[in-house]
Amino acid sequence: MSDLTLAVDIGGTKFAAGLVEPDGRVVAAQRSATPPGGDAETLWETLTGLLDRLEPPPGVAGVGIGCGGPMTWPAGEVSPLNMGGWRGFPLRERLAARFPGIPVRIHNDAICLAVAEHWRGAGRGSAAMLGMVVSTGVGGGLILGGRLIDGGTGNAGHIGHVVVDPGGPQCGCGGNGCLEAIARGPGLAAWAVAQGWSPGHAGSSQEPGRASEPGGESLRQDGEPSGQGGELYREEGTATARRLAADAAAGDPIALAAMTRAGRALGVAIASAVNLCDLDLVTVGGGLSQAGDLLFGPLEKALREHTRMGFAGRVRVVPAALGQDAGLVGAAALVIAGDRYWSPGP
Amino acid sequence: MSDLTLAVDIGGTKFAAGLVEPDGRVVAAQRSATPPGGDAETLWETLTGLLDRLEPPPGVAGVGIGCGGPMTWPAGEVSPLNMGGWRGFPLRERLAARFPGIPVRIHNDAICLAVAEHWRGAGRGSAAMLGMVVSTGVGGGLILGGRLIDGGTGNAGHIGHVVVDPGGPQCGCGGNGCLEAIARGPGLAAWAVAQGWSPGHAGSSQEPGRASEPGGESLRQDGEPSGQGGELYREEGTATARRLAADAAAGDPIALAAMTRAGRALGVAIASAVNLCDLDLVTVGGGLSQAGDLLFGPLEKALREHTRMGFAGRVRVVPAALGQDAGLVGAAALVIAGDRYWSPGP
Repeated sequence: MSDLTLAVDIGGTKFAAGLVEPDGRVVAAQRSATPPGGDAETLWETLTGLLDRLEPPPGVAGVGIGCGGPMTWPAGEVSPLNMGGWRGFPLRERLAARFPGIPVRIHNDAICLAVAEHWRGAGRGSAAMLGMVVSTGVGGGLILGGRLIDGGTGNAGHIGHVVVDPGGPQCGCGGNGCLEAIARGPGLAAWAVAQGWSPGHAGSSQEPGRASEPGGESLRQDGEPSGQGGELYREEGTATARRLAADAAAGDPIALAAMTRAGRALGVAIASAVNLCDLDLVTVGGGLSQAGDLLFGPLEKALREHTRMGFAGRVRVVPAALGQDAGLVGAAALVIAGDRYWSPGP
Repeated sequence: MSDLTLAVDIGGTKFAAGLVEPDGRVVAAQRSATPPGGDAETLWETLTGLLDRLEPPPGVAGVGIGCGGPMTWPAGEVSPLNMGGWRGFPLRERLAARFPGIPVRIHNDAICLAVAEHWRGAGRGSAAMLGMVVSTGVGGGLILGGRLIDGGTGNAGHIGHVVVDPGGPQCGCGGNGCLEAIARGPGLAAWAVAQGWSPGHAGSSQEPGRASEPGGESLRQDGEPSGQGGELYREEGTATARRLAADAAAGDPIALAAMTRAGRALGVAIASAVNLCDLDLVTVGGGLSQAGDLLFGPLEKALREHTRMGFAGRVRVVPAALGQDAGLVGAAALVIAGDRYWSPGP
């Protein structure tokens, strides 16, 4: 029996598989682009091809899977929003058939990222933590009492659907004023465009003529509402939002206003989570989090305005520490550190 | 050794102590009014006098205490907002000295009410529940994975400080737009008065002359901001809000608008909690919850508007089932059912 765990990370942009040491180190990994529009078996063959290339040793200790939601949980019949070919696809069962006799465990990809930060990243040692991803979507996972909180159906952690403005913009979920509707990269970029911002032209609002120059980039590529396409919780797919951050850094007033708007929405939603769950720590990862103080400044300000009770003032908000392997690390933790991150049984 | 547990429930209006059977039945109870403005020892003597009258049998199994917050937890040095005589008072330690050699456990009073509903009330069997109290304050407790969630400092469950309107009215906590600022009985009544409502005069908004009739009741008695007086999570102290509910039932348009406003705020905050914590069930107790459909109708409408993801739609909001003994039942559960409701150790 090997002491390695096989980790699988399934996203709308790429599939990844890796072998993870008991201490969380990823010692081998393979990646494939997600076949666009692939049907159920095409997607499955992409995954099995990846596993064949990885060549896991005989007798891995278990299999941990992170996959975009929604899914039935813990059964692991997945219907990822951004992979139309899998609807009710028995991903966990298929992998269990391929790796019999060992634990095969699955969770939402955003939850796996939160678990990774708690286990081996910026959240180590926290008793009460929210791990967030702010990217094309806004997601997260809750760790309370030092353990992953699943909620009644494995869906705890949906910080992106905490309501920050009940009369606010429509969200991909069908509600209004969710954090995600305001702070997801494409939502933020769309708001800036509506205010007159043109991607990649810092200062364009003062120089309207430049907005129509050749080379102005369409927002279409990641402007769809969450739930209809794109990568929800990863760093891909936020090119336009990153350009917005760059323009904000260059002093573009609309871009700055957009970052402030997103930062404040994040601060309010985090405050609600802190007050409700008595959190020590919030980690923030994902493409948009790389905007630094432009985002975290307004976030901190709003957070402190709305966490005035004594216990809530202690919370810290820090950047996520792990990089592109985080999804594999968190998936592996479902097996390796199942005492903390896996509740429903084998 | 007796199989009875001693339960103590400390509030700004009354102190209660009772003996609780292993199945949660309260078999004896004593109550005393809280001495207004009492200093530390006066308050303590009120409690010990109550215990002397109760005459617990030798060898009770343990002592469970519910007390208004804030407090250090689990140490139980209490500084109840509405009892200025106790600031950092070592309530748990004092009771432990009086009852040596047995578990003596303490939690926030709103948390004890949530525990009571989960253990023996409307929340039995729920894996993921929020137990709420809507009264002079708005509080609650979270049960996730079938266990009480304490949060990092024992303060999880503060649903009253989930932000429902970032630009909304100031809250007693110092923030703005908290659920409590809008939906607490006195806040609701104050809003109605500002709109022209006069307590006890249904229809007064159409008949302005009646508003100044003798007998119009001052709001002062429970109009203080939360945190400066009054009973936070109990049914006392909401006389004016109850009158508002009665006027709403009689068709007063301002009173109706006030109930709708509170109901919507409750629905939005509950939606955020449901989305974040993946809840099955929310129980709502406290004086204001007795307004029935006038409150629960708008609550349900707002809740459904803001819980559009598949998993969230299953949540049910129901009235709390336990009556005036709920605080004692929940306090006792910290001892009797400590496997589910007590995490930090003996």
